[in-house]
Amino acid sequence: ESRVPLFASHQVGVSGVVIKEETKEVLVVQDKGRRYTLWKFPGGLSDLGEDIAKTAEREVFEETGLQTEFQSILAFRQQHDHPGAFGRSDIYILCRLKPLTFDLNPCVEEISACQWMKVEELKREVHASSITHRMAEIISFGLREGWDKVDICPTKMESIYKGKMFHMFNRPLH
Amino acid sequence: ESRVPLFASHQVGVSGVVIKEETKEVLVVQDKGRRYTLWKFPGGLSDLGEDIAKTAEREVFEETGLQTEFQSILAFRQQHDHPGAFGRSDIYILCRLKPLTFDLNPCVEEISACQWMKVEELKREVHASSITHRMAEIISFGLREGWDKVDICPTKMESIYKGKMFHMFNRPLH
Repeated sequence: ESRVPLFASHQVGVSGVVIKEETKEVLVVQDKGRRYTLWKFPGGLSDLGEDIAKTAEREVFEETGLQTEFQSILAFRQQHDHPGAFGRSDIYILCRLKPLTFDLNPCVEEISACQWMKVEELKREVHASSITHRMAEIISFGLREGWDKVDICPTKMESIYKGKMFHMFNRPLH
Repeated sequence: ESRVPLFASHQVGVSGVVIKEETKEVLVVQDKGRRYTLWKFPGGLSDLGEDIAKTAEREVFEETGLQTEFQSILAFRQQHDHPGAFGRSDIYILCRLKPLTFDLNPCVEEISACQWMKVEELKREVHASSITHRMAEIISFGLREGWDKVDICPTKMESIYKGKMFHMFNRPLH
């Protein structure tokens, strides 16, 4: 029996959780043409070879026109038989982003609504999934207790394969 | 331009970091037939549809004969152009496992060496990669300060897709 996989088993999706700290608001969008109209965080699939942080920043910019800066990973999920993953599994990663601009300019082809929403309101929002509610709790906790209580942070490291670098993500050790 | 990916972009590898708390030792192996002989944590690729926790427990059992129980995720890495990933990218996840048995019975086809090693020794071990050294630091910190300072923990949640469940991983909120 061959141990070599025929091809990769997972797609990787990344969302950007963009937080305005002063007003305790978070950026949410509604996708066009979906069966369920849910408030969610802007995001999409990683391009081949694209870093997680880059996917988050790129997707937020494409969908909302906002420029942001990656800060950390807050959470991730593994789901099997994900609809839209063509029989593959899905790893979905939620990144905390700092907004660098504030004017919303949503992509009319992909997005039907786009706004800043109070985190406390998102916790109770009926048109949102369980994962979005859970994220609202994590954001709320981070706003109250400090991001160093929720962040999973990258360290750039050298691979054993010459010239290659990678990012390792873990909780800061303090 | 189509936004649909031709197929999944990532393979997912999982290793098990099995820790004997009383002796501050961790389970390490050397793979057979590799160019570099390095001490590493037992692990391998996720089968299609297999949970991260399951892959860690299965690979540790297959490679070392040890039965274990998944506790948490300690760290993960994204690497592009990973040799052996057929041009795909690689997500490598390191899980903390509790040993349920202690007798080592390594797989002679895959493993050339297998032993419990003091974590402090692994930190200084020359035949280990940067990621293994970093993990030794994380384990050492967890042994000293408590696992609640390093763990990234799963919550089982219901998907918006009826009947489907998933695991969400984040830092416990306390």
